[in-house]
Amino acid sequence: MILRMPRAPYVRFHVRAADPGRRTSVQDIVTTLVEDIGDGRLPPGARLPPIRLLEQQLGLSKNTVQVAYDELVARGLLETREREGVYVATAARAIGTIRPIAKPPAARLRPAALSTQSPPPGTVALSSVFVDPALLPRERLAECARSVLHGHGLEAFYEPQGYGPLRELIAERLRARGMTDVRAANVLVTTGSQQAIDVLARTLSERRVAVESPVYWGARLLFESHGLATTGLMLDPFAGVPLDEWEKRIVSGRPALLYAITSYQNPTGYSYTSHELEAILTMSERLGFAIAEDDWGSDMLSGSEYRPMLRTLGGPNVVYINSFTKKLLPSLRVGYLVAGDELMPALLSAKRLATLGNAWISEAIVAEFLGRGYYDTHLLALQRELDERYTRCLELLRVCMPEGVRWTTPGGGPTLWLELPKAVALDRLGARLRDRGVSIESTTNAFEGEPHLHGFRVSYAFLPPETLERAVEIVGTAIAEERS
Amino acid sequence: MILRMPRAPYVRFHVRAADPGRRTSVQDIVTTLVEDIGDGRLPPGARLPPIRLLEQQLGLSKNTVQVAYDELVARGLLETREREGVYVATAARAIGTIRPIAKPPAARLRPAALSTQSPPPGTVALSSVFVDPALLPRERLAECARSVLHGHGLEAFYEPQGYGPLRELIAERLRARGMTDVRAANVLVTTGSQQAIDVLARTLSERRVAVESPVYWGARLLFESHGLATTGLMLDPFAGVPLDEWEKRIVSGRPALLYAITSYQNPTGYSYTSHELEAILTMSERLGFAIAEDDWGSDMLSGSEYRPMLRTLGGPNVVYINSFTKKLLPSLRVGYLVAGDELMPALLSAKRLATLGNAWISEAIVAEFLGRGYYDTHLLALQRELDERYTRCLELLRVCMPEGVRWTTPGGGPTLWLELPKAVALDRLGARLRDRGVSIESTTNAFEGEPHLHGFRVSYAFLPPETLERAVEIVGTAIAEERS
Repeated sequence: MILRMPRAPYVRFHVRAADPGRRTSVQDIVTTLVEDIGDGRLPPGARLPPIRLLEQQLGLSKNTVQVAYDELVARGLLETREREGVYVATAARAIGTIRPIAKPPAARLRPAALSTQSPPPGTVALSSVFVDPALLPRERLAECARSVLHGHGLEAFYEPQGYGPLRELIAERLRARGMTDVRAANVLVTTGSQQAIDVLARTLSERRVAVESPVYWGARLLFESHGLATTGLMLDPFAGVPLDEWEKRIVSGRPALLYAITSYQNPTGYSYTSHELEAILTMSERLGFAIAEDDWGSDMLSGSEYRPMLRTLGGPNVVYINSFTKKLLPSLRVGYLVAGDELMPALLSAKRLATLGNAWISEAIVAEFLGRGYYDTHLLALQRELDERYTRCLELLRVCMPEGVRWTTPGGGPTLWLELPKAVALDRLGARLRDRGVSIESTTNAFEGEPHLHGFRVSYAFLPPETLERAVEIVGTAIAEERS
Repeated sequence: MILRMPRAPYVRFHVRAADPGRRTSVQDIVTTLVEDIGDGRLPPGARLPPIRLLEQQLGLSKNTVQVAYDELVARGLLETREREGVYVATAARAIGTIRPIAKPPAARLRPAALSTQSPPPGTVALSSVFVDPALLPRERLAECARSVLHGHGLEAFYEPQGYGPLRELIAERLRARGMTDVRAANVLVTTGSQQAIDVLARTLSERRVAVESPVYWGARLLFESHGLATTGLMLDPFAGVPLDEWEKRIVSGRPALLYAITSYQNPTGYSYTSHELEAILTMSERLGFAIAEDDWGSDMLSGSEYRPMLRTLGGPNVVYINSFTKKLLPSLRVGYLVAGDELMPALLSAKRLATLGNAWISEAIVAEFLGRGYYDTHLLALQRELDERYTRCLELLRVCMPEGVRWTTPGGGPTLWLELPKAVALDRLGARLRDRGVSIESTTNAFEGEPHLHGFRVSYAFLPPETLERAVEIVGTAIAEERS
């Protein structure tokens, strides 16, 4: 890599022209410098701009600046240092160079309320929400990337709403899944589903959002970071949605939006029943709140074509969010949001203010992958593998978990929720597990207030079967030890 | 593309087990269905989940669900339809299927205050801030992309702070440009500089920001969209920074942050003098505001190594923002922010909440390009070409502009500001130009309050010389016509 070491920076000054916007004269330069040196704006020892540079900037013919500098050197105001350039004369006064000004205050920036929860390297991440990278089509995606480069090269510009062909392909898929009204114009491509939630949060005219409790921490903290108040709606994956209680909370809180993860809910693994979905849609009409459905997982696993969703039952006024992060490759950062024609301008504006647009190459790779029909083939294989892992995980839990431990049965999805007896202290258990190379994730920030659940996610999607087996055995033993 | 047409969605229900978390029995399924059909949660005609699917979900041995369904068919509560599945019996009551619920209200989302200003296709975009794509190294970048794919394939995961090797290379470049303290840990890679500004806006603990007036509209609207108040600091590119007036405005407004574009200011093309930079740093210490310097253009053009900057003069407490968008390729969407060790955790948290992380492949392509030393070679060639275009543009303006028209002399950068006599109505001029195939951009939303400037950007970087020549001639003629 070529790196040129810099000289001291030159001082920048503006030549005040007698006839602004017209050609600057030698006299303009001389007058400006005399004044600026005289009043100390250009201190002794300051390096002046190189002659060629100033001429270029001002569009001057050769020698205009040279003549002016020469005159000032002759007057003793400037001095020439060989091979270094022209400086304001140090004269009798002490040499002043431009000194760094220490520490303008940065203290008025504040930390966000986000703690980093990456598991220590080398430990088994039992609560990961990702899919095992070994199951992801990295090779085929790279093949698609090569094909994009071969066919188009790199496009120069991006589309703020997302790459057109990708939006077409997404819309086509969704129509085939029962969202018959979706067109490319209804799709907004985002940086993962996270930006979809962010964009939505930016457009809310009223400042309260209802979320499940517990809910995906990244959504909850995101809403809060925008200054939105949240109404937590208690979700017990072992008992379902307490619709009456939800209605009471919504009536008193008056949220503008309900954000819900209706399939394989994160972190509980819960999937809403058809009855619950219909009741929520009816409630949204009666009480006047909008709905955003985060469908991160429904096409990850078997039976996906049949899953009932708010978007298919409730129509185009339900904002729908999905992403390729888990199912294709996290590093691509391609997610999307689907909204009706009336909402799209506001959502697109919000995305433009946030990032203008996102990386074209990533969007083009996903479009190529979808266009070749690779995605369905991939999903089938992925579903089969994850189904096996899920079944095996259930068997393992039955064998290894002590009495009193319960778990959800999502029927697939990346994770289930393991619920422990209250007698087991989660923080102590976490420490014990860490010592044995297994990390579990605290979900305290997923709840509104005091958690009513007492456990953590178990990821059968992320861990290879042997690793999962070992980890579940360790967890079972540790729980038994904690209780004894 | 393989698309499977969906059948009607099945209804989802949850089997209530006598012993939750343990193996579900035939009796559990029967009891649940009897209850749910009895109280109407599962309406007549509803399709039940396929047997295999329910067994898989609950981790049941084969036939458990079959036996339960069979029992309920025998009791007349369910019915089997050939090749379609098992349904809740329609019995005497009318068939109810799940009906779409019309229009839950979406009305509580609001439009953002962003108007789209894309010039009509086919017109010459005279005010573009982009560099002519013909001058950008698309081929070499594609070569770097192929090399990344060949060497690494696609990484599975992303780094929230940005690809490590890219941050190393950026830090190295900045050290060589006089920011001697910058390490990779101080660099946060963002989706263009837009996300850098967004991330910064998210971390402000106090809700007021000072910005130049006029200023890049995307920054101004972004701050406002976060609910931040703005203090506009009047900038007249023909007169410089009125430091006393700025100080008064800052003292009364008490902004937490000053956001400033100190080189080739957008939209005026103004570059701060060394004296002004120092005065602002002193002011920031005395009055207690933080500084963010958006340096979008200083390495785009000649003499870039020497440009004085707030970050080099003021040290690590000045947050520094830059981007490869204009200089390398817009579609890559790679920008960055440099901040001191104390600020980085808050900024990184804000970025994680916004997008978690950005497309790895884009970041890897830029890293490869920098690592091979292509960037300096490219910048030199780009600078040479833009310098020529700049000089030619000044000549053109001198020839074509009627009396009373002034312009800034940025000395390079992508654009200059063309200032017209107040007698020329900008909207009428804009319409006249549009008719002749030239579009200029209104900058009303770049000002706080009533604009004190009366003109628009002229982009010599975006337009090929012949196109610029034609456009400037058209503009000159149109102005003369407007005044006559």
